[in-house]
Amino acid sequence: MSGNTFGKLFSVTTFGESHGPAIGCVIDGCPPGLPLSEADIQPELDRRKPGTSRHVTQRQESDTVEILSGVYQGVTTGTPITLLIRNEDQRSKDYGNIAETFRPGHADYTYWHKYGVRDPRGGGRSSARLTAPVVGAAAIAKKWLHQQYGTVFKGCMSQLGDIVVPFQDWTHVPDNPFFAATGDAAVIASMETYMDELRKAGDSIGARIDVVAQNIPVGLGQPIYDKLDADIAYAMMGINAVKGVEIGAGFKSIAQKGTEHGDPLTPQGFVGNNAGGVLGGLSTGQDITVSIAIKPTSSIRTPRPSIDKDGNPVMVETFGRHDPCVGIRATPIAEAMLALVLIDHALMHRAQCGDVKVSTPNIAPSAAP
Amino acid sequence: MSGNTFGKLFSVTTFGESHGPAIGCVIDGCPPGLPLSEADIQPELDRRKPGTSRHVTQRQESDTVEILSGVYQGVTTGTPITLLIRNEDQRSKDYGNIAETFRPGHADYTYWHKYGVRDPRGGGRSSARLTAPVVGAAAIAKKWLHQQYGTVFKGCMSQLGDIVVPFQDWTHVPDNPFFAATGDAAVIASMETYMDELRKAGDSIGARIDVVAQNIPVGLGQPIYDKLDADIAYAMMGINAVKGVEIGAGFKSIAQKGTEHGDPLTPQGFVGNNAGGVLGGLSTGQDITVSIAIKPTSSIRTPRPSIDKDGNPVMVETFGRHDPCVGIRATPIAEAMLALVLIDHALMHRAQCGDVKVSTPNIAPSAAP
Amino acid sequence: MSGNTFGKLFSVTTFGESHGPAIGCVIDGCPPGLPLSEADIQPELDRRKPGTSRHVTQRQESDTVEILSGVYQGVTTGTPITLLIRNEDQRSKDYGNIAETFRPGHADYTYWHKYGVRDPRGGGRSSARLTAPVVGAAAIAKKWLHQQYGTVFKGCMSQLGDIVVPFQDWTHVPDNPFFAATGDAAVIASMETYMDELRKAGDSIGARIDVVAQNIPVGLGQPIYDKLDADIAYAMMGINAVKGVEIGAGFKSIAQKGTEHGDPLTPQGFVGNNAGGVLGGLSTGQDITVSIAIKPTSSIRTPRPSIDKDGNPVMVETFGRHDPCVGIRATPIAEAMLALVLIDHALMHRAQCGDVKVSTPNIAPSAAP
Amino acid sequence: MSGNTFGKLFSVTTFGESHGPAIGCVIDGCPPGLPLSEADIQPELDRRKPGTSRHVTQRQESDTVEILSGVYQGVTTGTPITLLIRNEDQRSKDYGNIAETFRPGHADYTYWHKYGVRDPRGGGRSSARLTAPVVGAAAIAKKWLHQQYGTVFKGCMSQLGDIVVPFQDWTHVPDNPFFAATGDAAVIASMETYMDELRKAGDSIGARIDVVAQNIPVGLGQPIYDKLDADIAYAMMGINAVKGVEIGAGFKSIAQKGTEHGDPLTPQGFVGNNAGGVLGGLSTGQDITVSIAIKPTSSIRTPRPSIDKDGNPVMVETFGRHDPCVGIRATPIAEAMLALVLIDHALMHRAQCGDVKVSTPNIAPSAAP
Repeated sequence: MSGNTFGKLFSVTTFGESHGPAIGCVIDGCPPGLPLSEADIQPELDRRKPGTSRHVTQRQESDTVEILSGVYQGVTTGTPITLLIRNEDQRSKDYGNIAETFRPGHADYTYWHKYGVRDPRGGGRSSARLTAPVVGAAAIAKKWLHQQYGTVFKGCMSQLGDIVVPFQDWTHVPDNPFFAATGDAAVIASMETYMDELRKAGDSIGARIDVVAQNIPVGLGQPIYDKLDADIAYAMMGINAVKGVEIGAGFKSIAQKGTEHGDPLTPQGFVGNNAGGVLGGLSTGQDITVSIAIKPTSSIRTPRPSIDKDGNPVMVETFGRHDPCVGIRATPIAEAMLALVLIDHALMHRAQCGDVKVSTPNIAPSAAP
Repeated sequence: MSGNTFGKLFSVTTFGESHGPAIGCVIDGCPPGLPLSEADIQPELDRRKPGTSRHVTQRQESDTVEILSGVYQGVTTGTPITLLIRNEDQRSKDYGNIAETFRPGHADYTYWHKYGVRDPRGGGRSSARLTAPVVGAAAIAKKWLHQQYGTVFKGCMSQLGDIVVPFQDWTHVPDNPFFAATGDAAVIASMETYMDELRKAGDSIGARIDVVAQNIPVGLGQPIYDKLDADIAYAMMGINAVKGVEIGAGFKSIAQKGTEHGDPLTPQGFVGNNAGGVLGGLSTGQDITVSIAIKPTSSIRTPRPSIDKDGNPVMVETFGRHDPCVGIRATPIAEAMLALVLIDHALMHRAQCGDVKVSTPNIAPSAAP
Repeated sequence: MSGNTFGKLFSVTTFGESHGPAIGCVIDGCPPGLPLSEADIQPELDRRKPGTSRHVTQRQESDTVEILSGVYQGVTTGTPITLLIRNEDQRSKDYGNIAETFRPGHADYTYWHKYGVRDPRGGGRSSARLTAPVVGAAAIAKKWLHQQYGTVFKGCMSQLGDIVVPFQDWTHVPDNPFFAATGDAAVIASMETYMDELRKAGDSIGARIDVVAQNIPVGLGQPIYDKLDADIAYAMMGINAVKGVEIGAGFKSIAQKGTEHGDPLTPQGFVGNNAGGVLGGLSTGQDITVSIAIKPTSSIRTPRPSIDKDGNPVMVETFGRHDPCVGIRATPIAEAMLALVLIDHALMHRAQCGDVKVSTPNIAPSAAP
Repeated sequence: MSGNTFGKLFSVTTFGESHGPAIGCVIDGCPPGLPLSEADIQPELDRRKPGTSRHVTQRQESDTVEILSGVYQGVTTGTPITLLIRNEDQRSKDYGNIAETFRPGHADYTYWHKYGVRDPRGGGRSSARLTAPVVGAAAIAKKWLHQQYGTVFKGCMSQLGDIVVPFQDWTHVPDNPFFAATGDAAVIASMETYMDELRKAGDSIGARIDVVAQNIPVGLGQPIYDKLDADIAYAMMGINAVKGVEIGAGFKSIAQKGTEHGDPLTPQGFVGNNAGGVLGGLSTGQDITVSIAIKPTSSIRTPRPSIDKDGNPVMVETFGRHDPCVGIRATPIAEAMLALVLIDHALMHRAQCGDVKVSTPNIAPSAAP
């Protein structure tokens, strides 16, 4: 209810602040009998962790995960799984100057008004650091979904500021610091240059991220409010800095005619995927395709006009260590949120309709996003 | 849990099917003491109801609402309010031909796979007709929010297919059949012509709808998962045919720099509203601005390739009465969903932080969407 | 959240007041494919309805149920099932004298303080009449549980005031107006005499009800908070006038030793059922046995000291039609609540652990309660 | 949903197992601005911790609590509060003999059937050790309730096996190892002797615990399902080993007449408290009075007939360290559960009806239980 739990049947309650002693989460509802150890989780955390290139925050965190409960003799027991990640590299003094002022575009202002108190160190609870436990929880969800249905998740950055990244192949994603699905060295170089200039200028930039889930049973979702796409939109818009969400054709649907948008069905499967894998709120068995818009980081070095707690005008510049493009590390986070939505709906579907099978007929893989 | 209830503290459970005896909803959590009668609700239902122009479905429904419970001597009692709307103009025989086949782009296929049974008459439960009870429930939410905070809701169609509607003024919205915020007769005429041609062609088209909520307390929302914007995205993506949602600058954020996107604060309020009234998941007190993409109707007269229940190829054409642009009647629905999100968060905020006051300082009205 | 919905996966939202136009409920989460018509529901409503003997309220209600949604061609579709029961025999003038005063032992006082407004006609929302929709919903739950696991429900009154009813056999329950499990005419006659005298005296009396569910899969329930017995206690204590709940040995456990209480296991099943079919919050596969204490009706003709809304002392006597022992009609209600708890846990178990089978080994039927 | 979270608005999610590395909880929904440190929580944990007398388990746990999140500069921030308690004195080898067998009266059997896997060390997740985090969370709830309304909680053991403890005064409770509200040394001595004999015999015994909450606002609770007493019953029946719950007159209500049971109202307050402080599911402002029955410990040294995992007959005797009467340490746990129910309803009431005041008129304190 108070907004720190994601999911109903596979529910993840996160805790912690950017500069507190630890962050983590409690996962309630993981089915019993899943082989699980830290080694299943750490690789996903490593994809998201800071300090892996010069284009992201230089805060040094190993993000080493400890499983505190819910696993016995290497297998999940059906009881809550707790993941704990100790914070290691707090530098709270960097935030002294913003404790009394509000950064334009930052949650500072709204936290202060809501709670009457806030932890200004690194954004406190509003920090994107809090996506780490979610990525950890989603590693477990991904493993279970893969075991049950063969589900796999893919994601990439498809736009950085004005630079549109042409999609080549998913295999390129781990080979560059941007999660770009391209092997074109010139494109990557232009992104590197762009980010270097931005960093020197003390500014930040937005990005677009695409994520896809493949091998999904037909019928996941609810018909009216907990539509699969509605829950995906909720999950994605809940990621820090996201300002827009599209499923399938998304905003392009506005100018499409019905004869163009509706994906025809054939005995061999759907032709096209304007639906993005969801019709009437339920999965079609095609790829789930999602695209999100991420705003530029609000914590920038360039001084900006603002006010202090007393309403007096001030200029605010942010020190501390920040990602000049929060979109760069957002790909594994967006995949994680999609995985959490899908496992929740898979369990719900099992409650409603019994054991779920992946329907093989009538499903054609969609093209790349 | 099973997806027919919207909201936690002001929760609306809808029921019914397009061609069943009745549709309606139960509203649990409406605060006691609110003066309420059918006269508060009917005008909102009338804005949404079918048959009001030649550009929407010609099904004739008066959508007359009856309050079955929760009001005593003209005042809400704090117990559940039930709204009942009898269906009047069912023509189920129109759907004989689609009971055994699946319309491209329609929920037919997914319902069949999920439940193993479906009501094909008018889309059954997946019909946009089920948005009527929600609009009724939201009329109550709007009244309470206005009484508490002076909140008002506005909405318009800003794009119909390729036709972008330049925003002039909210006052024009009721004066044309499209909810367009323009008094330019030429624009309206072009939309009329466009729709007439489309109808003759047996095709359909998408649209963009913008909605705004004004006079909102600061601090509504939750910081991590039940962010105000996340819940708005969930609400909007749950409306039939919606494929994309934006808050504030939305997808334009991708190419914005931090120095451009972050709305400066001044002693007189925010300058600009790229945030769309939400920072860190909490309301800023500015206008909440939302934009959604609506896909073209999937039920069209033009024959389209599909399959039947046995997987055999067929051509499907849809008879029955359908909106050639479901976006036309979507404006009051989008306003309704926004109102339901806001009342839920307003009540939640009251639980967490006590009685809420609208903060007057530091709030500047944003410009039109 | 606002307390008018029971259950999470098979959730029942009730609405209506004793003297409003109608009462009913929306059932969300009923699995698809269950054959269902009013004929499945009406017999359970008839067991509970008023006016069937001189020992209960003489209000005449046929309690005829109408299914408004969720069933198509005689089968549940997985979408919300709405049950509507029109009120037929309101006599609201009977309540004129209590609109300004509070009955000792009645919800009058607390409703007034909570909401600042109340519907005094027949108790408004606090009337036991609101158990009718629940009994209707439970008829559906019972049918599904029986189809899946062969589950059956039994209940009886085991004590009326000081009269303890010796258990003979379940078959006698429908043959007397008290739901007594005895064929001893002398016992029934003593109960009749007792009630006749009580009614003449303008007084009321308490009762004890026992309910049993048989043929339950092993493992339903959750280990910590949503224990099966915890949810049963919640369900039972939520029935109007219930002041105590026991599972299995109940309060007798206080004076039992461990060597006496713990039911031994044998290859043929459990020996004894002090557990009442629940260990560690999970079902054992034995009979679930529950016993509840029901207080005497607070609405009695005998004048009693109280206060009015202004705090002035008054004597209150209640006219209108009331059950002199609300326990008499409570047996089908207690069965209903038990059925609703069990279907919810059965669906939850399916979400967590996949399709459920009734374990045949190690289960021995327990004796009568 | 999966049963490890208690409460909706002040929700406590616990984690951990008896012999895992740690236990703890995440508290979501604590209002901001409450001064809080470990020193507020530790004393409540110390009341519950093991090893404080020879009559309870000799496991040595300091139960030292660490606050991992949600508090900044000594004040709650409105974000999740995490409590961590490291396990210190695991002796898992004691459980080797029961990993393959089931203890009569223990959750062994049901866990095994539900999950197909269980942690046998000290009962794993089903251990009463898991009540420690709840007691910690409730310390925060108690502090907030006291600050808001002056609410105080009291509890005592009123029966140990056949020994009924006459109530003298709450002040005696901390002065004996049984939480008995008596200063009569002979009574305490008889309890000591009783427990010594029982321990020598390798047996266990049940108990009755009474708890009271004083200074409660009028109107907390919901009218139909989330009745205050229903939620209390749920909370109490969820405590390990509880088999019965009573509110107010409880099972004595069965033989009471209406003229006797209904507490009269006077301008000075209620006369009597058969209601136990709840009418129609809502608090009356009187003391909330609750009584629970606790079964004897199932883990006893005396060999008992049972089966192993393969269904073969075996004799089971339990080594390890166990409380011969789990009721002895249950008093602070029962108080804790009552506090968690009340804070949740207090916050819910604030959502529904705005800021709550304790009503001073018409409330008379009830006598001791």
